[in-house]
Amino acid sequence: MTGTILALAGGVGGAKLARGLADALDPGRLTVAVNTGDDFEHMGLPISPDLDTVMYTLAGRANPDTGWGVAGETWSFMEAVGDLGGETWFRLGDRDLATHVLRRRMLDRGATLSEATDALAGALGVRHRIVPMSDRAVRTVVETDEGTLPFQDYFVRRRCEPRVSTFRFEGIETATPSPGLSAALADPDLEAAVICPSNPYVSVAPIVGIPAVAEFIDAREVPVVAVSPIVGGQAIKGPAAKMMAELGAETSALGIARHYGGRIDGLVIDEVDAALAPDIAALDTAVHVVPTVMRSEEDSRVLARETLTFAARLR
Amino acid sequence: MTGTILALAGGVGGAKLARGLADALDPGRLTVAVNTGDDFEHMGLPISPDLDTVMYTLAGRANPDTGWGVAGETWSFMEAVGDLGGETWFRLGDRDLATHVLRRRMLDRGATLSEATDALAGALGVRHRIVPMSDRAVRTVVETDEGTLPFQDYFVRRRCEPRVSTFRFEGIETATPSPGLSAALADPDLEAAVICPSNPYVSVAPIVGIPAVAEFIDAREVPVVAVSPIVGGQAIKGPAAKMMAELGAETSALGIARHYGGRIDGLVIDEVDAALAPDIAALDTAVHVVPTVMRSEEDSRVLARETLTFAARLR
Repeated sequence: MTGTILALAGGVGGAKLARGLADALDPGRLTVAVNTGDDFEHMGLPISPDLDTVMYTLAGRANPDTGWGVAGETWSFMEAVGDLGGETWFRLGDRDLATHVLRRRMLDRGATLSEATDALAGALGVRHRIVPMSDRAVRTVVETDEGTLPFQDYFVRRRCEPRVSTFRFEGIETATPSPGLSAALADPDLEAAVICPSNPYVSVAPIVGIPAVAEFIDAREVPVVAVSPIVGGQAIKGPAAKMMAELGAETSALGIARHYGGRIDGLVIDEVDAALAPDIAALDTAVHVVPTVMRSEEDSRVLARETLTFAARLR
Repeated sequence: MTGTILALAGGVGGAKLARGLADALDPGRLTVAVNTGDDFEHMGLPISPDLDTVMYTLAGRANPDTGWGVAGETWSFMEAVGDLGGETWFRLGDRDLATHVLRRRMLDRGATLSEATDALAGALGVRHRIVPMSDRAVRTVVETDEGTLPFQDYFVRRRCEPRVSTFRFEGIETATPSPGLSAALADPDLEAAVICPSNPYVSVAPIVGIPAVAEFIDAREVPVVAVSPIVGGQAIKGPAAKMMAELGAETSALGIARHYGGRIDGLVIDEVDAALAPDIAALDTAVHVVPTVMRSEEDSRVLARETLTFAARLR
């Protein structure tokens, strides 16, 4: 392949595959469009958790232990905020804080989130294009058995404990893709779209729910392939399996295939789920079975290459 | 004495005497009004260097090595800002940053600088009243042989290297004292005003230049006593001596007495300057000669008590 690839990504799992794709593709060939439904303002600072996870990961600066945040992080700021009686439920590391303060500054001066992301990622040496799904605010809201919660209240403050009945994405109806995502969607050289192994409900749904992205996916002039975030009935990381169960879906790679339904051409599943391949194929979704758990950068590169080869086969 | 005391303070030297006064007086008896001419916005954050130095010092959290900043400070944020290509000439420590971020938040929500200062100092356990000289912006501007410079550009970025011709305080003509300073000025129980050993040109001048403060000092219904920041012809800390020389003043405690002129009733000078006492007295300014260099908290307490006793004698 010599054309371009669009990756849709959320946080940690998405970032790992995005890094593999970045290693596999020349910078001009990859756009990573990132969920911003989790974004929120905290302590007056604009926090973009997924954008930053992808940025730090592609820059080689992600915390290897957590997958999010910055390697070598320190927490003096948070301690001092606690001493001053401020909110400490959402933890901002001292290094990470530089990203938020500089982003605040750029946005206050009129930059778009895309422009701020370009500047930050560029400063960290990221050569591939990382773009927010939209420069307009789309905000994930969680309907739970304890009422309506803003996403980070549900996700971080309440640790996903309330039972979910639905996710809503405020502002999505009128949201437009960011310029970088629009350009990727319209690129005549686009060869495939890859839905990274991110949470389908809270990371992927906001991106593919933007009307212009939904149209692109429904038209499907290029293959759309997803990598299952569910392996052996468990989420590699995060609450995807718990959400699936609460929403009445089967917590398996087959459940993922059913969730994406006719909107994807192919699904990459893990070897441990090989027995599900016939049922997934019966949904008219092509299946590719490979190791999908990314424990190392080499794992990410191998999975990225496998995914690209699979997508090329579906053209 | 059982009445109240008003201290006017800038940064490190002022904070040290303020701490001594705080140790000597019950909380209800002391108001420390602090210079805000050095305040500026940096990286979108409202920085109040002198207010914070006084606050950290009275809270027992000042960095003992520098006199400013917070003890046990770390610098990860600043390193990360540098990595991201941001400005690093004004160094914000990780712990100190909590103060600025929380102050930004309070100001954005409509709090005055006085209210934000009350909240921050209260959270750090400061029981004495620390108030900004004004809740309105007064900004020190420096006229130099290299042109006009905002104060922090001159003071931090250029390390006071340009030769000063004058200091201006933008906004001072229309500035009013903060509510706390107004209350202290109008307090019928006020027994004395103490001008702390802060830089007379850039720390004290903005406070006493606010019209209502100038009127109070000129009326002088209570003694106004200053502590000389110049000892043995040198500033204990900072560029006061360099400024005096560039402005054509004699860099000595006598120069300080001439600078304050008829606006003070008494001047506390150091033992090493005892020989200047007759010349100062000849200016119709009472003189009190004691050790004034504050190397320890005990030094601060002793100087505070000496200053209060001296002021009481002048009533």
